[in-house]
Amino acid sequence: MGGDYDEMWRGLGLDLPAHERLLELLGGYYREVYLSQADRPRAMAYLDAVMADIHGGRVRELQAARAEGRKVVGTFCVFVPEELVLAAGAACVGLCAGAEVGFAEAERLLPRNTCPLVKSFFGFRLARLCPFMAACDLLVGETTCDGKKKAYELLADLAPTYVMEVPQAKRSADRALFREEVRRLAEALEALTGRRITAEGLARAVRLVNRRRRALQRLARLRGADPAPISGRDALLVNQVAFYDDPERFTGAVEALCDELEARVAAGRGVAPAGTPRLLVAGAPMAVPNWKVPHVVEGAGAVIVGEESCIGERHTRDLVDEAAADLDALLDALVDRYLRIDCACFTPNDDRLDHVVEMVRRTRADGVVHFALQFCQPYAIEAARVRDRLDREGIPMLRIETDYSMEDVDALATRIEAFVETLG
Amino acid sequence: MGGDYDEMWRGLGLDLPAHERLLELLGGYYREVYLSQADRPRAMAYLDAVMADIHGGRVRELQAARAEGRKVVGTFCVFVPEELVLAAGAACVGLCAGAEVGFAEAERLLPRNTCPLVKSFFGFRLARLCPFMAACDLLVGETTCDGKKKAYELLADLAPTYVMEVPQAKRSADRALFREEVRRLAEALEALTGRRITAEGLARAVRLVNRRRRALQRLARLRGADPAPISGRDALLVNQVAFYDDPERFTGAVEALCDELEARVAAGRGVAPAGTPRLLVAGAPMAVPNWKVPHVVEGAGAVIVGEESCIGERHTRDLVDEAAADLDALLDALVDRYLRIDCACFTPNDDRLDHVVEMVRRTRADGVVHFALQFCQPYAIEAARVRDRLDREGIPMLRIETDYSMEDVDALATRIEAFVETLG
Repeated sequence: MGGDYDEMWRGLGLDLPAHERLLELLGGYYREVYLSQADRPRAMAYLDAVMADIHGGRVRELQAARAEGRKVVGTFCVFVPEELVLAAGAACVGLCAGAEVGFAEAERLLPRNTCPLVKSFFGFRLARLCPFMAACDLLVGETTCDGKKKAYELLADLAPTYVMEVPQAKRSADRALFREEVRRLAEALEALTGRRITAEGLARAVRLVNRRRRALQRLARLRGADPAPISGRDALLVNQVAFYDDPERFTGAVEALCDELEARVAAGRGVAPAGTPRLLVAGAPMAVPNWKVPHVVEGAGAVIVGEESCIGERHTRDLVDEAAADLDALLDALVDRYLRIDCACFTPNDDRLDHVVEMVRRTRADGVVHFALQFCQPYAIEAARVRDRLDREGIPMLRIETDYSMEDVDALATRIEAFVETLG
Repeated sequence: MGGDYDEMWRGLGLDLPAHERLLELLGGYYREVYLSQADRPRAMAYLDAVMADIHGGRVRELQAARAEGRKVVGTFCVFVPEELVLAAGAACVGLCAGAEVGFAEAERLLPRNTCPLVKSFFGFRLARLCPFMAACDLLVGETTCDGKKKAYELLADLAPTYVMEVPQAKRSADRALFREEVRRLAEALEALTGRRITAEGLARAVRLVNRRRRALQRLARLRGADPAPISGRDALLVNQVAFYDDPERFTGAVEALCDELEARVAAGRGVAPAGTPRLLVAGAPMAVPNWKVPHVVEGAGAVIVGEESCIGERHTRDLVDEAAADLDALLDALVDRYLRIDCACFTPNDDRLDHVVEMVRRTRADGVVHFALQFCQPYAIEAARVRDRLDREGIPMLRIETDYSMEDVDALATRIEAFVETLG
């Protein structure tokens, strides 16, 4: 991984020697998790190229856009409507982080028992290792969990930060609040970019983001085939890259991948033999390069056939209604779509239980691995409700809570292998 | 502690032998923390009597009320307007729990890294050790933190549970949401009790709860004297008992205590010599019998002069406007008052920083002990903002995060003694 980006990275304030070491580590881990797989779809070459250039090419694109006066907005969560960012003429980049980087620095600000995802975006910032965050003109946070909600107050001391409120239930007053938050964010983005959000611009952005969602939905459906035409690791990677690649180009790459997978399915060809135990992973997001659990699961002889996750179907399940005629109707359509997200931040959140079961049926999964990031209370506690529901449906579930360190890999492998064996 | 309550406790489904052991332990700990103090105000005899009878007399009163058709409503947080409960003709009892009881049972449902307060109310319920919770006809939770928000979904399987949404910011859409939640709760309480909430009834409840707040404010002001006329432990106990004692009788007892403290102040008499280091405790609530930190602090030669806490001034600082003429205006006044609470669940929560400084000045504190319950992300993360502000004001602060176990008492004592020494 690399390229001739030193000048750019220096300009973005990165710690170059530490950053060089990070890229080397990441490259080695990518080879171990990804390039070691047999019989990968050829179209994954696009993803390999993106990853080989992860802190380079896309950052250069963003910097070039900024040089022409465009703004870049960083987000941490699927609740921030990317359509608004695009309609205001800015680029949108997901900043969720999946590496144990800069934790010592982060823990000087944040309690040690903060979820690794939050510690990671602080760690990347404080250790000066994330060119994406450094290229952002505005960070847009949200109030989906205590850890992020309160951490953004501290992040605001380090970078321009805006926080959008997400309600905690889905009654009519919640909808009104979120509608107002969408309006307020639109205003903030217009102030940032100096460009008015028009009905035409927003409709165009809605269509663009919907196209990406449809491509990812197509990928999700193809994984229902047995044998599975793509590994869970590769499919997760596609869902991860969705958050920061150029949406138009990325959608084309996913469609090409799906074309190839369709041919594979038609030929009965897969990444593992038919009858391989199939697992759904459900719960908290896995951000790049958090490939630990999928790597262990697929190393244990199972294949992952779906991600019931923010980096997965929570991001792609619902489309925005494209029929809306004017700006107000478009904003209403955004609200409708985003409030359908079944995040554990809501109470009650029974829709999610239905969705997990629907995904198990659709992907023909034999069981569920429920994944929570350590100290992520919403998903860790909701796991009990998921288990109750799956018990009633006769679907086996294994509950995992882990962080970004590699210390528990052997223990995880032992538990996951035992679980896979029971699926017979 | 005890009395002839076995029949009642059995009827409430308690585990009598385990409950007997709990009361014995509690009695011993109370003697160690409370009865060992020299020169306590005589009026604390009322609190000693309440505590000696903690699971007896008040529970009997509630059961007697229920036998006459009244309902009992349990709450876990200062955001649930007690005035509404009283105006609907029900009794209100705070159920926050401060003991490491039933944690093994609780941890079969909840992740181990759940805050001890949440684990404790589950533990008391699952181990059948809380006669108050057993006497409740309805539990009213709120969405103030991830742990409670999601745990109430599981609690609903164990007891009738209603959840009120508390917004996460204080803009006008948040106010509208909370106003709707107050209306919705009023309706639920009317359905529970079969009694209509009238303007007269609500106005009466507002005056009653305001009187209790005024008495507790008076107590808070008296602690500004040097020497301090009452220990922090005793003042905390008064604030704890405020949540479950009969409001009328309790207010009288606090007024009597304040009369005595006023005489003490006039005579220059205190519980520790003038010039004793004075500390404010700020942060998360300490529920009965969580007296660990105050016991250690006052054992280290300091005196606590204020609780910037939900069980403390967050509960008593603001009054409801009594001038409101009709029901709608009274409900608006409730909303105004409750949304002034400076809980760390809000973002931003700058009011709290001002309040901490105001309390330090008013109580003439030499420093602040910032207290967070383990895994309480809102207060643990906000501690960084409190520290920044206190640094700027030149006020020393010690940051503590702890649970309900006694394992860290020696380590806490070492840190607290070192902090007290620096205050000279």
